Amino acid sequence: MHPHTLGIIGLGAVGGSIACRAARAGVARIVGWAHSTKDGAAAARAGVVSEIAHDLQGVARVADLIVLATPPTATLGLLQELAQPLRCRKVYCTDVMRVKAPIVRLADRLDLQSCFAGSHPLLDLSGSGFGAAAPDALESALVYVTPLPGGDEAGAEVADFWHRVIGAAPVTLSAERHDELLAWTGQLPRAVASALARVLAEWGPDGVTYGRGALEQTRLAPENRAAWADLFLMAREGLLEALDAMEQSLDELRVALSDGDRAALVRWLEKGAGWRGRFEP
Amino acid sequence: MHPHTLGIIGLGAVGGSIACRAARAGVARIVGWAHSTKDGAAAARAGVVSEIAHDLQGVARVADLIVLATPPTATLGLLQELAQPLRCRKVYCTDVMRVKAPIVRLADRLDLQSCFAGSHPLLDLSGSGFGAAAPDALESALVYVTPLPGGDEAGAEVADFWHRVIGAAPVTLSAERHDELLAWTGQLPRAVASALARVLAEWGPDGVTYGRGALEQTRLAPENRAAWADLFLMAREGLLEALDAMEQSLDELRVALSDGDRAALVRWLEKGAGWRGRFEP
Repeated sequence: MHPHTLGIIGLGAVGGSIACRAARAGVARIVGWAHSTKDGAAAARAGVVSEIAHDLQGVARVADLIVLATPPTATLGLLQELAQPLRCRKVYCTDVMRVKAPIVRLADRLDLQSCFAGSHPLLDLSGSGFGAAAPDALESALVYVTPLPGGDEAGAEVADFWHRVIGAAPVTLSAERHDELLAWTGQLPRAVASALARVLAEWGPDGVTYGRGALEQTRLAPENRAAWADLFLMAREGLLEALDAMEQSLDELRVALSDGDRAALVRWLEKGAGWRGRFEP
Repeated sequence: MHPHTLGIIGLGAVGGSIACRAARAGVARIVGWAHSTKDGAAAARAGVVSEIAHDLQGVARVADLIVLATPPTATLGLLQELAQPLRCRKVYCTDVMRVKAPIVRLADRLDLQSCFAGSHPLLDLSGSGFGAAAPDALESALVYVTPLPGGDEAGAEVADFWHRVIGAAPVTLSAERHDELLAWTGQLPRAVASALARVLAEWGPDGVTYGRGALEQTRLAPENRAAWADLFLMAREGLLEALDAMEQSLDELRVALSDGDRAALVRWLEKGAGWRGRFEP
């Protein structure tokens, strides 16, 4: 769908980027609302929103598509507040959380099959707030769209918005499958980056120059602790399974090293190198 | 020192880069020798070596500085073969291994205090062989120089070579201290990258698009299994300690997650994020 009036709740790095691209795509009216008045003011000054609503219901009254671009726990609360106006006016709605089952299950309980589908744009923006918006990062970005059971039509409209208005590349799948995949490909790498950063903070040498290796390997350590604590908890089941596998993998290395078993070390290194070699550097 | 005749054993990515910069710096004669005739031929064709020696002793007879730019185990063997000519002619010699205690101890046993000092240039070249040489990566690159006990003069000459001829930034410290530091900052990040790549190879979803996170977090998984198995074994003591810390860090995350303890998760994320925030993205 190409909305006439787009509502964007949250005008941080992700919400700001979406607003920017929607403005460029010629969406007639973009109504924003942000918990942070600073982000709201910055988005208005930049001309990427037509107006800032006084409250959430002010957005719900006028928009024909609402994007919740807010932190994880806030997003769940906002969807509850919006449920009635969404159902009554048949406004489409999506979110941008990195974990999808909790919000899709909530939307299902709230009977939003005909208007809600989850979204997860694969973005990796540095920093936070409207100042960190990077609209170009959305160009051809992969966006997972997760419809509710029986919500294929809303899923198609949301996917169409990402494709036609935002210029991203939507891929539709179930919220459960999404979360199964992302525990390995999204949460685990960030957990590993954080675990390594913790290790270097606690036991690593002080006052030395860290090479590109250590810095690159910890860049993903999430800055926003509160949001990621919530995401990790939402992704808990899959992430625990992935962490077990990671600990087992390190354990195999430790055993091969303790035993001084060179052949086992070569085999251990082989598998990861072979897998990684399938991708570009 | 600014050698008149520089000998370079091994003309792969690192040796090739060194030869290239030495040629640019006006070293009169650069004699190369490579196990890989392909690398030797490529270096000669590129004009970065003046000649390719027939054998190791052919280099030892003419060079006043020899750089061993060879895989770890080969490097130890080559130093033994070179010990006598190095001592007799008082040729300076260094190597480029990422672990320093084994070669410095060997050089000490071979009585090379007056001519050998270890080196470890912090390079992160992609690929291998002369074709992967990237001389510009040596510009201002940090190079650890590790003299033998009583070998400060040779250490100073080698450091001077890295600075004056190669344009890198040498830092002198003991081989033991170097290996203690690098177990955390160098080997551990690579072990973690490999462990994660193994996990994704074995348990990760197939046929999905891996985002920037998973790919960046595994890029360092060493390609050259044999060389890294040897390096891991040489760095064994320090790396085992670092692996213990990493497993403990992941374990803390697993416990906080199993317990659904949000405050503990925030604290767990806090430490790594705080440390990482001290560096540039």
